[in-house]
Amino acid sequence: MTKIRRIDPGPRLSEALVCGDRLYTSGLVADDGIGPSVYLQTKDILRQIDSLLQKNRADKTKILKANIWLAEIGSFEEMNKAWDEWVVPGQTPVRATVEARLADPIYRVEIMFEALLDD
Amino acid sequence: MTKIRRIDPGPRLSEALVCGDRLYTSGLVADDGIGPSVYLQTKDILRQIDSLLQKNRADKTKILKANIWLAEIGSFEEMNKAWDEWVVPGQTPVRATVEARLADPIYRVEIMFEALLDD
Amino acid sequence: MTKIRRIDPGPRLSEALVCGDRLYTSGLVADDGIGPSVYLQTKDILRQIDSLLQKNRADKTKILKANIWLAEIGSFEEMNKAWDEWVVPGQTPVRATVEARLADPIYRVEIMFEALLDD
Repeated sequence: MTKIRRIDPGPRLSEALVCGDRLYTSGLVADDGIGPSVYLQTKDILRQIDSLLQKNRADKTKILKANIWLAEIGSFEEMNKAWDEWVVPGQTPVRATVEARLADPIYRVEIMFEALLDD
Repeated sequence: MTKIRRIDPGPRLSEALVCGDRLYTSGLVADDGIGPSVYLQTKDILRQIDSLLQKNRADKTKILKANIWLAEIGSFEEMNKAWDEWVVPGQTPVRATVEARLADPIYRVEIMFEALLDD
Repeated sequence: MTKIRRIDPGPRLSEALVCGDRLYTSGLVADDGIGPSVYLQTKDILRQIDSLLQKNRADKTKILKANIWLAEIGSFEEMNKAWDEWVVPGQTPVRATVEARLADPIYRVEIMFEALLDD
């Protein structure tokens, strides 16, 4: 029987969970204090997924899929600057980026990930 | 060879399908007669996923992931009221909620689920 | 140990990747020269996924899930015309379609797929 192992399960949602050999994350947003910079918010989200992966003995080369929502699509290149500095060329996930208003206007970017966990 | 078992397959899309130990749903919307209340539309969608899960010998604690689209992000707390009344604290899925115009303006909320089916 | 096999891995993202028995694609958009027709852009995206599936010994009946973003939800039926001509009735995937501004305004439709690869 396959187990679901939840990471930071809250009353509404879990920050992430592991099922089989997959890690799924909620839509991650930057820490509140980061300010409005899309570049800095993206860097903070990527730091969070790095940390989640590391705690599960994986790393960013195991990310399969990323869904990115930008509050303003005009910040596409600013988000990409943080992304391109971080991602490992040749070991990149699939990705889709679209504009969407997010739950709180202080967040300018939100990213949901799926990754492979494998021993 | 892994089979795909489709649930309510239509000419355009299937309401849900099972592949391996995963249940995938289309973006579910409320029944047409529900009216414009986001709270009631969300309750109706959650009733639909409960029914889908039950017919496949699972329940809401096996939901892995939910993608929620709101026609107006201002209805975030109204959607959450229905969600929070329904979800099992501590056994919550990952989730991302963003604003998006939906295919028909009578629908104010749409949710796509992925769940674990396991015997 | 499960391998990730990337298809057209770029420095930013991979067009698609295979992990276990699943094919994941990035958000696919039409070739630049297609022009603004949502019908023709959708047809071009569906041609791309057909090609990706064929190269991996699969076909469109193995698509599990499609996420569709339309730059204008008013083009829903125009997108569906191309979709309905292409999809195999009774063997349809789950699907969710919402409006979202896309990264480049020349693209009017973007589709992200997940499919079963099975020998």
